[in-house]
Order: sequence, then C-alpha cells, then structure tokens
Amino acid sequence: MLHEIPFQEILQKIKELNAEKVLIQTPEGLKREAQALAEFLERKGIEVIISGDINYGACDLADREAKMLGCDVLIHLGHSYMQINLEVPTIFVPAFAKVDIVKALEKNLAEIKKLGRKIALITTVQHIRDLERAKQFLEGEGFQVFIGKGDNRVSFAGQILGCNFTAARVGEDVDGILFIGAGYFHPIGVALATKKPTLAINPYSGDSAWMDKEVEKIVRKRWGMIAKAYDAKTFGVIISTKKGQLRLGEAKRIMGLLKEHGREAQLIAMNYINPEALEGFDFDAYVVVACPRVPIDDAERWRKPVLTPPEVELLLGLREEYEFDEILGGKREKDEPFGISLKLPKR
Amino acid sequence: MLHEIPFQEILQKIKELNAEKVLIQTPEGLKREAQALAEFLERKGIEVIISGDINYGACDLADREAKMLGCDVLIHLGHSYMQINLEVPTIFVPAFAKVDIVKALEKNLAEIKKLGRKIALITTVQHIRDLERAKQFLEGEGFQVFIGKGDNRVSFAGQILGCNFTAARVGEDVDGILFIGAGYFHPIGVALATKKPTLAINPYSGDSAWMDKEVEKIVRKRWGMIAKAYDAKTFGVIISTKKGQLRLGEAKRIMGLLKEHGREAQLIAMNYINPEALEGFDFDAYVVVACPRVPIDDAERWRKPVLTPPEVELLLGLREEYEFDEILGGKREKDEPFGISLKLPKR
Repeated sequence: MLHEIPFQEILQKIKELNAEKVLIQTPEGLKREAQALAEFLERKGIEVIISGDINYGACDLADREAKMLGCDVLIHLGHSYMQINLEVPTIFVPAFAKVDIVKALEKNLAEIKKLGRKIALITTVQHIRDLERAKQFLEGEGFQVFIGKGDNRVSFAGQILGCNFTAARVGEDVDGILFIGAGYFHPIGVALATKKPTLAINPYSGDSAWMDKEVEKIVRKRWGMIAKAYDAKTFGVIISTKKGQLRLGEAKRIMGLLKEHGREAQLIAMNYINPEALEGFDFDAYVVVACPRVPIDDAERWRKPVLTPPEVELLLGLREEYEFDEILGGKREKDEPFGISLKLPKR
Repeated sequence: MLHEIPFQEILQKIKELNAEKVLIQTPEGLKREAQALAEFLERKGIEVIISGDINYGACDLADREAKMLGCDVLIHLGHSYMQINLEVPTIFVPAFAKVDIVKALEKNLAEIKKLGRKIALITTVQHIRDLERAKQFLEGEGFQVFIGKGDNRVSFAGQILGCNFTAARVGEDVDGILFIGAGYFHPIGVALATKKPTLAINPYSGDSAWMDKEVEKIVRKRWGMIAKAYDAKTFGVIISTKKGQLRLGEAKRIMGLLKEHGREAQLIAMNYINPEALEGFDFDAYVVVACPRVPIDDAERWRKPVLTPPEVELLLGLREEYEFDEILGGKREKDEPFGISLKLPKR
C-alpha cells in the first residue's frame, strides 16, 4: 500500500473511547486501506460501517451520517483536522505518502535556484511530515526558506488546501514559491494568491513545472467563462450542504451584489454540486459559493456559465485583477500531531 | 405547465406556521415549477432556498438539510407523505397530472376485458385523484373493481410506489390487475408481487402493454446477475442514508445470511448509491438494501454483480421463486387529503 494507516493506534483510540460501532470515511485513494482497516477492526470485535460516498476532504465530513447510523465514532482517513463543529468524536488519520521528497528537490536544484535565494515552501498534507527535512536540505544549499503558518482551515505550517493558500503568505517578501506535491490546482492557486513565481515539484514523478503558463491558461479560460455570463439575467447561487463548504454569508453577499446590479438571483443548496442535477432549472448562469474547485475543475461539463464569487465581482466591474476563490478560516493556535488526532464535539 | 402547484395554498400554510425561511425540494419533472414557486414566495417576502440535489421520492426527504440551513419549513413537491420522522414542519405538495385517464381506459376497453371481470385497480400518485372516476367508469362497463388500501408507505388507497405494491394486494382473488401510469417498473413489480395477469395503461400515450413479457425479460436478466455472483466471496452490503430508504435491520439480516453461508460481508452506507463511487473498493459483489430500483434500473452501469435482498436468498438457495424487493410499512390509518398536506415533527 502506498500510504501508512496506523491500524493499532486507531484501535487503541477506539478502545479509549469505549466505542463499539464506527463509521470509516475515506477519499478515493484510500478505499482499499479503508476496507482493510474495517476487516482489522471487525476481527477485534468493533462493528464497522464504511461510508461509500465519494469524499472530497475534511470539509466534507460524515459526522452527521455517523450519528444517524448510530456510530459512536467517525474515523476520517486521508485528511487532517479542519475547524468544524463535530456531532460525534472523530479520529482524523492523515495518510502520509511514502515518497522521498528530498530526492525530487535534489534532482530539480537548478530549477529551484531560478526562484531566487529567498523562498516560501509549501506542500499538501500527504508530504507535510517531510517538510522540515526539505527545508533543512534547501538551507544546506544556501536558500533562505520560509514556511507560513496558515489559518485554522489547515493543520500544519506550510500546508495548503485547494481552497486555502494562507500558508503561502509568509509575511516576508520572498523571491518565489516552491510547492511540493502532485497536480497543478494547488500551485496555480498559490501563484494567483501570491503573485510570485511559483515552481511545482512532483515528488512521485520527480518532474518540475513553472506555474506562469498554467496560470495564464486557466485565467484566460476563466475570463471566457465570465464573458459567457455577461448577458445572464438570472443566476442560481449555489451553496453546499457539506459542512466545511457551507458559506451562507458569502452567498448572501453575492446575491446582494447581483441584485444591486439588476440581475436576479436565487439561492440553491446542494450536497453534490454537478451540472446534470441542475439541467431541469431555467437559470442563465450559476455561481458556486462552495468548494472553489467545483466550477473550475468541472468547467467543461457545464452547459451554462458557472462562476466563482470573485468572478462575479469581475463580471460586475467591482474588481479588476483575476483572483482564485478561497475559503479563509480564523487564527490557528498550534499544529496538529503528525499521527492520528482525536477531536471531540463541543459541549 | 403539466402539473398544478397551488401557490396560494402553500403561501397560506407558510403564513399559518409563521415561517420566514423555507427550503423547496422537487423531483426532476417539477424543477421549473419549483423555480416559479420560489419567485412567487420571495415576492411575498418569504426567504427561499431551492434544494438542487436530485430527489428520488418522499423517502429522500431534505428535512435534515432544511434544519441545517436554518429553514423553518420544508416544501416537498411531487410526492405525497410517507411515514417518516420529520425534523422540520413539512408541506407535502403532490403534483397531479393534467391528463384524462378515463379516455385511455375507453380506448383500451377490449384489452382490459381480457383481464377478466374481477380486477384490482392501481396507479401512481400523479393520477390518484382520478382513480375513483376510473373505477366508476369500469363498473359502468360491468367490471367488479377492487382498490387496495396499501400500508403506511403510501398515502392513498390504490397508490403504489416503486418499492411498495401493497395496494395491489386487495384481499380478493381477482382475475387480473389494471395499472394506470407511465413506465414499466411499477407494473412489473406488481405482476411479480401478485402473480396475476397485469395490464399497464399509459394515460399520456394511450398505449397499453401486458406485463408478462416484461416480467420474463427482467427476471431472466436478474437470474443472469445472480449467476454472476455465484462465486463471489466478499460482498459489500449497501444501505442508504436517505431516511426513508434506511433498512439497517434488513441489511443485518442479509449480512447474517451471507456469513452463515461462508461469504464475507461488509456494511457500506451511501447517500447517492452508484457504481462509480464504489470503483475503488475490492468487493466481488454488492447487495443494495435501499431503494429496490437502484440495482435493477442501473444494472448495466455496474461492473460487479449487484443484487437485491431477495436475490441473495435465491443465490444462497433459501428461496426458489423470483420476487421483487419491496419496502413494507405499517398499518395505514386514513387517506391523506388530495391537496397539500402539512406534517409536523413529533415531539
């Protein structure tokens, strides 16, 4: 298996909680591990239900479902804790990738040097445990390395999410940003959020890529989407019922802006936001005030224009520079442990 | 519009409840009507959110979502009340089709006569208001017509659901069953449940169809599915988190049967049950203990065998005759009104 799941430690926590019945929730990449964990726990006498719904992050927590199904505990695999009101005790089990990120840095040292000497270092939760080692390696190579603390949507210094790049804002005027991780969505967001040269290094393939071209490509596409919405009269403003994505205040702000500018707006709530489910409605355009990835990753699947909140401001002429949608949190007190982390409902 | 939605009556009920904020939930076929109702209510000063999630019936009620979104009332369009524990006051608004069912009966009188003189008459909620008129017409033509009461998953005598054919069991040895409505799923279930000749009349097209060939076709397909599961060692037993489809007891019974017969079984909970979400798991076969339509309507989309609970009994040799999966309720006291119907949470 590509990821380490600490079965014994999880069992230990379940026993400490005197729990008899647990719900396991997992992202796509850990479904086999979830199945193996379920088998292990059932052999130990724990009753287990696996959540089969596709999980998109800690923002999409199945604690309500756990409660409804009579489970004492939710085991959430693959993501670290995010500030959220829990309905049952929840064990967060981040899954760390077994891949050597320093090796990928060594291989790309020449590219990294093009960033300048003063850099901010960021990654996703899978590689967060190795970030300090990466920092030391880079310092050994003469770089001045900054790791931002981030707000309380993340659990660790240097950690970014697809909806939160606060850890990339290090409070120093760095020359550039070094992102370690797979995929371009995160580093594109960072490049847009920081306006700094951003290099992404994929620790699995060992490849590196500069984000400027990717940013240009995506921003051009998004302006095309905004243009498609210019004449739209009626907007469906979509909020999510996933608890870490519910942004009712932001949705109302966007509805207000649209109405002030002579457009009609109707609030729509959805769990799984997808264009097919909206086909039956008669809106000219949509705004997704939920996970910022939804309108961008799935843009091709929508027949109607679909915008993010900052894109509505661009549409209405209230903003000039393109910006990614971001969900910000409050102040973060301290890092979570690198291992499993138990969080209890607030009384 | 094809369906009548009584806007004024709904507003009246909302005012009686002193509600300020409502969630509207609607099946696919009434999404435009839901949008128009939202506009109407907002003009009257009511704050409205529309649920954009695809709705599959009264079993799939968004009362939890309404509560979470701070709505005082849920307006559920298109389905009549089903016995369920509510979290917010809910206004059920059945949508009656504007189509003359007696005309379709007149046209098909020769076929109906082939059923025999003593018949049971059933329909779906869309046409329920016209059922008495249909009965009178048929009695005028010399038939002896029986309308079954059904259990408390339905709201009206003579009403059947895709998961409940109790109204077709009229307590009399009828010669055959006459179903009025669109689609074959319901009358196939009835033919299997009653083992009686069943004629389906589509009031929109005016066409009629005998169910014996359809039953044969579907039963042959289902036996093929059961055969595909013969060697399966591990079963994912899927329950639904939709509150009117949650059958935990039945799922445990099926898990017990599988284990007694040397198979492994793991309980999986899902909101939107679909094969794509299960791709990441490593089960040999699945059992859907939720909406009976899911494993049958979508059979082609599953790469792994997917069975209903009665099909597991056939697989294990515990049953011989093919039977549709059915969700049964308790005793039903009285019919709901034909208009809108307000139901309050139990204290």
